[in-house]
Amino acid sequence: MDTLEAIGTRRSVRHFTRDPIAEDDVHTLLQAAMAAPSSANQQAWHLVVVDRRELLDQIPTFHAYCAFLHEAPLAVVVCGDLSRERSGGRFWVQDCSAATQNLLPAAHALGLGGCWAAVYPIEERIDGLRRLLHLPEHLVPLNVVAIGHPSRLPRPAARFDPARVSWNAMG
Amino acid sequence: MDTLEAIGTRRSVRHFTRDPIAEDDVHTLLQAAMAAPSSANQQAWHLVVVDRRELLDQIPTFHAYCAFLHEAPLAVVVCGDLSRERSGGRFWVQDCSAATQNLLPAAHALGLGGCWAAVYPIEERIDGLRRLLHLPEHLVPLNVVAIGHPSRLPRPAARFDPARVSWNAMG
Repeated sequence: MDTLEAIGTRRSVRHFTRDPIAEDDVHTLLQAAMAAPSSANQQAWHLVVVDRRELLDQIPTFHAYCAFLHEAPLAVVVCGDLSRERSGGRFWVQDCSAATQNLLPAAHALGLGGCWAAVYPIEERIDGLRRLLHLPEHLVPLNVVAIGHPSRLPRPAARFDPARVSWNAMG
Repeated sequence: MDTLEAIGTRRSVRHFTRDPIAEDDVHTLLQAAMAAPSSANQQAWHLVVVDRRELLDQIPTFHAYCAFLHEAPLAVVVCGDLSRERSGGRFWVQDCSAATQNLLPAAHALGLGGCWAAVYPIEERIDGLRRLLHLPEHLVPLNVVAIGHPSRLPRPAARFDPARVSWNAMG
């Protein structure tokens, strides 16, 4: 799929068939995520792939906006790896968000769909994932990205808004 | 350009020819940025396009890592718009980072190159941009993205690292 089409037509997908994600596609998604830029190239990320049904089904018990995980065959939990963070903690959220946003158009290009559900900085969600996935202290979950084969495709959204653009000095 | 190729081969570009960016391409980049997902679809971003040489040349006086702006014909300053933020300030950094990471592979697909230079949360950089671009209080600059026609293209990097992947519960 063409890059501008993938970026422009990607929507959050919350309804999935039960089909699993091919191993090659998982690898492609992880590669896309790790191709992101990062502050001083620190790559302070760690990706936890969750495909066990009992784990996916537990996440909504502490993260109400993740009910779509009951339908999703797989999720990627994008974590900041503080043991690799060399910016005093200032940039890992930005770096890991970039990695996440590489993953989503890549999924769309593969015919898959995904939805980014925020975790950090909400303590209940962080603690819930930490306990469920046995995350060590140096990994901080930033989000949960559901991945699956869309059972319904949302129509592309036109989000461009010229009111949110300025040129050069304002005011 | 194919989506996976654009995401996978994008590198930070810091050397540019003097050619300006076509107006259509600027519009395409802004559209790509605003196609990003955001927390509860709040779209709490504002994009300041800078193409005045004297403004571009001043940014490195308070942001030393932006020396490449002396070569770049254009920059996009991605700002959080706190007047549109409905998450208590918790998610605009993630949302605006996603918008930024939509813009970069889009630039690469157009034959352009870019480099993301972090601003937030470094006060000196925030204040410098606020004064230079007359940003109102509710806009917080997250980064400066230089955009230009690459004069040298860095070779694609292989960043995938299987040590940064786990499956299901760890440890």
